[in-house]
Amino acid sequence: MLDIWLDADSGSNQPQYRQLYDEIRNRITNGSIADGSRLPSVRALQAALQLSKTPIETAYQMLVAEGYAVSKPRSGLFAIAPRAGTIPDAGKQKHGRAGLYPDIPLSERQFREGVLQPPKAFRIDFNTVGVDAALFPLRAWKKALHDTLEHEFLNHSGYGDPQGEYELRAILAEYLGQSRGVVCSPEQIVVGVGMAGSLKVILSLLDPIAIAAIEEPGFRTVRDVFLAAGTVVEPIPVGELGIRLEGLAESKADIVYVTPSHQFPTGAVMPYGERLRLLEWARERGAYIIEDDYDGEFRYRGKPIPSMQSLDPEGRVIYVGTFSKAFAPAFRMNYMVIPEALLPRLGAIGHLLSVPSRMDQLAMRTFIEQGHWYRHIRRMRNAYRRKHQRLSQLLQEHFGDAIAVSGGSAGLHIGVTVRTERSAAELMELAADGGVRVYDYARTWMGSIPGMGEATVYLGFGDLSEEELALGVSLLREAWGGAIARGN
Amino acid sequence: MLDIWLDADSGSNQPQYRQLYDEIRNRITNGSIADGSRLPSVRALQAALQLSKTPIETAYQMLVAEGYAVSKPRSGLFAIAPRAGTIPDAGKQKHGRAGLYPDIPLSERQFREGVLQPPKAFRIDFNTVGVDAALFPLRAWKKALHDTLEHEFLNHSGYGDPQGEYELRAILAEYLGQSRGVVCSPEQIVVGVGMAGSLKVILSLLDPIAIAAIEEPGFRTVRDVFLAAGTVVEPIPVGELGIRLEGLAESKADIVYVTPSHQFPTGAVMPYGERLRLLEWARERGAYIIEDDYDGEFRYRGKPIPSMQSLDPEGRVIYVGTFSKAFAPAFRMNYMVIPEALLPRLGAIGHLLSVPSRMDQLAMRTFIEQGHWYRHIRRMRNAYRRKHQRLSQLLQEHFGDAIAVSGGSAGLHIGVTVRTERSAAELMELAADGGVRVYDYARTWMGSIPGMGEATVYLGFGDLSEEELALGVSLLREAWGGAIARGN
Repeated sequence: MLDIWLDADSGSNQPQYRQLYDEIRNRITNGSIADGSRLPSVRALQAALQLSKTPIETAYQMLVAEGYAVSKPRSGLFAIAPRAGTIPDAGKQKHGRAGLYPDIPLSERQFREGVLQPPKAFRIDFNTVGVDAALFPLRAWKKALHDTLEHEFLNHSGYGDPQGEYELRAILAEYLGQSRGVVCSPEQIVVGVGMAGSLKVILSLLDPIAIAAIEEPGFRTVRDVFLAAGTVVEPIPVGELGIRLEGLAESKADIVYVTPSHQFPTGAVMPYGERLRLLEWARERGAYIIEDDYDGEFRYRGKPIPSMQSLDPEGRVIYVGTFSKAFAPAFRMNYMVIPEALLPRLGAIGHLLSVPSRMDQLAMRTFIEQGHWYRHIRRMRNAYRRKHQRLSQLLQEHFGDAIAVSGGSAGLHIGVTVRTERSAAELMELAADGGVRVYDYARTWMGSIPGMGEATVYLGFGDLSEEELALGVSLLREAWGGAIARGN
Repeated sequence: MLDIWLDADSGSNQPQYRQLYDEIRNRITNGSIADGSRLPSVRALQAALQLSKTPIETAYQMLVAEGYAVSKPRSGLFAIAPRAGTIPDAGKQKHGRAGLYPDIPLSERQFREGVLQPPKAFRIDFNTVGVDAALFPLRAWKKALHDTLEHEFLNHSGYGDPQGEYELRAILAEYLGQSRGVVCSPEQIVVGVGMAGSLKVILSLLDPIAIAAIEEPGFRTVRDVFLAAGTVVEPIPVGELGIRLEGLAESKADIVYVTPSHQFPTGAVMPYGERLRLLEWARERGAYIIEDDYDGEFRYRGKPIPSMQSLDPEGRVIYVGTFSKAFAPAFRMNYMVIPEALLPRLGAIGHLLSVPSRMDQLAMRTFIEQGHWYRHIRRMRNAYRRKHQRLSQLLQEHFGDAIAVSGGSAGLHIGVTVRTERSAAELMELAADGGVRVYDYARTWMGSIPGMGEATVYLGFGDLSEEELALGVSLLREAWGGAIARGN
């Protein structure tokens, strides 16, 4: 293992971390590194290969992310050999067929979770990505789309602006200014097809990012886009006030991804003072902040705190929003606000941008212009507030002191901290046995740890009716009965 | 200049070409390399920096592509300093404002051409990307969309399959098998949002590509995606039978991008024998072939030659198709067929894929299922065939022996080779002065060369009426009058 020779002098334009990852992966795949054997420590490889720590850590992170190794707490990394004809799933799941489960398409709940396994037959799935489709303004949307096709297709049949239709960007700029305090011109807005795409655009606008700080736990897709781009990812723990700024201060990150309105998944809301301190960190470091305001429309208590972008005089914040929560994920439409100083670089990559259908973009412009959007947001906020209250109430009724509910009175999911000696992963399994799906969002390389006295799982409610909420909670009570620690 | 020190030993995970590019670009921008000064030859830098040729050539290619240097034939590369507050356009165009012309959105014609300049006021624009919107099946499409929203939104409001809706992939597999001989299962199809996105997915599915061969002249977006990914791009000249296989044989490419049905832009059709030889090259090299069948539905004479994918028993061909020509670019929907051996890798990156709106995907499935698609293709093929014939006829009438028309009797544009001492770029300028836009697609680092005795420009006709074709050709006759060489 320590006889890896990297192509450092032969003019290969492969970065070192990539060469190392490829070499180790190949050896695991062909068996010269045995299944289950322990990989050398970072320090040992540093000495043996005369490399710095960074490329080795990156290669190891990629091996774990791609499923070629697993991290065992306080033991190290151990190789996982793929079964013949397969490659390993991310994480520890293995599946016997090639491809994406040919007869079972990935469902939406697998999207945010990134779990590549066939969905079990769940009776109730507390997924955090579904929206209440029954309340969707179908008639108003169909009318907007019909009118757009009827009157605008003829002159808008071509490729359109790769940055997104100007009229949509103009009305978005107005909406964001009013609702979130975001200060921008339409020129700063880039309409996109989802977070992964937007993040890739951000990376191509910036000088190469060596280290990206992300929230832990957090949104897996963001981590994976950074890793795929060859960036070292530093997970920074999240506390009650959001990402822990002390953790960030110790890192060498050039960029940080945060969800300050409603941390995903813990629900922590970053207070005003912390936002100012985070901006100060970015200013001193010359770093960027990606502010993902994914469900910023859905706050149920108190006044919304202004977006970080609105507090940022230096253009360090890149604000990202989406139509996936307030509208529906099915349309694959999102947007971001680029700081002015980066606009010239946008010009260089314009033709590489991906946008949604022009018809959908213009229909959305109409939908907003005619006031349907504002009405819809209000309606959904009320509906989700009711469900949020109902679910919290049901949980208190069934579990009493054995749980604590968290989630910041915002968004489409809540956190449930259970008094137990089991781990969150074990709670998930018990729930699954009882026909209920809940989520632990364990993202650390170490996984979730039993024996801590409590464990937190997350329950979404967007696409569940009140009857389904009641059924789900009652099934959970049965499933977790024996696992709950005797209270005081 | 020769005192560039690269971070080779300090553990930087920046590839060498990237460090070199950044360093030279910075020096050009801050003036330490003077505007207009000649950059050192590749050989000189090799010696001075002890680097191999490849990273230096890549860095130089990027400097030219990004507008920081210009190549003068037989002289070398010369620095271009950006004006204060701007960055250079790709190529030699400069503009004074930051951003993407804030008050003038990029038009579709700029998309394929990649020319970042405000559209002049043209009377007739022979762009190659427009389609005949007046013939679009608006009623049938609106019905399919309406029905999908009405009956399927409720159960399809979430994220959906990141590979694309299974039902659409199933019917696409059937359609491609019948119309293009493509052999695949629905599992091999990936629905996407455009060529740039599909190409990035292809690159993430393959082992790292060092050298990509592309057609010259060719589709600029493909070149730019490869360059942005850090790949060295080798332009291979195109002849009457398509990409010149001798040129490819001399290259060290790991992948080649081709448009064998109807070369873009020359229109050359790759015959059966050449296709087999190209497959042989890929087999021997262990290389991949990207077959872009962008307008494969529109062949006006003779039997269609089977797709390369249908001739490929070893899974070396990645077939890409689009709805942009046969349907309309506005919907931003395309697809590709992944070789079976790559499907496991797709599983690892599934959640990073971008797809169009699920409603559009399912509406397209309905549109095809109900036979509208086949009717539409036939209708458009007839309409475009008529326009192709009309334009060829008009050109013969106005120019006689001074021109030769080419284009393979397929697709939505033709080539016009003019007997002249001027370059294609000069013909474009003369046409522009006369209110007509034509295209030269000059892609070589050297640009187009005058004094060759003839020059070729391209005229698209998709979105022009027969009256507009007649007006355009007559304006061209005036504009080029003096430039046409006296014939025999």
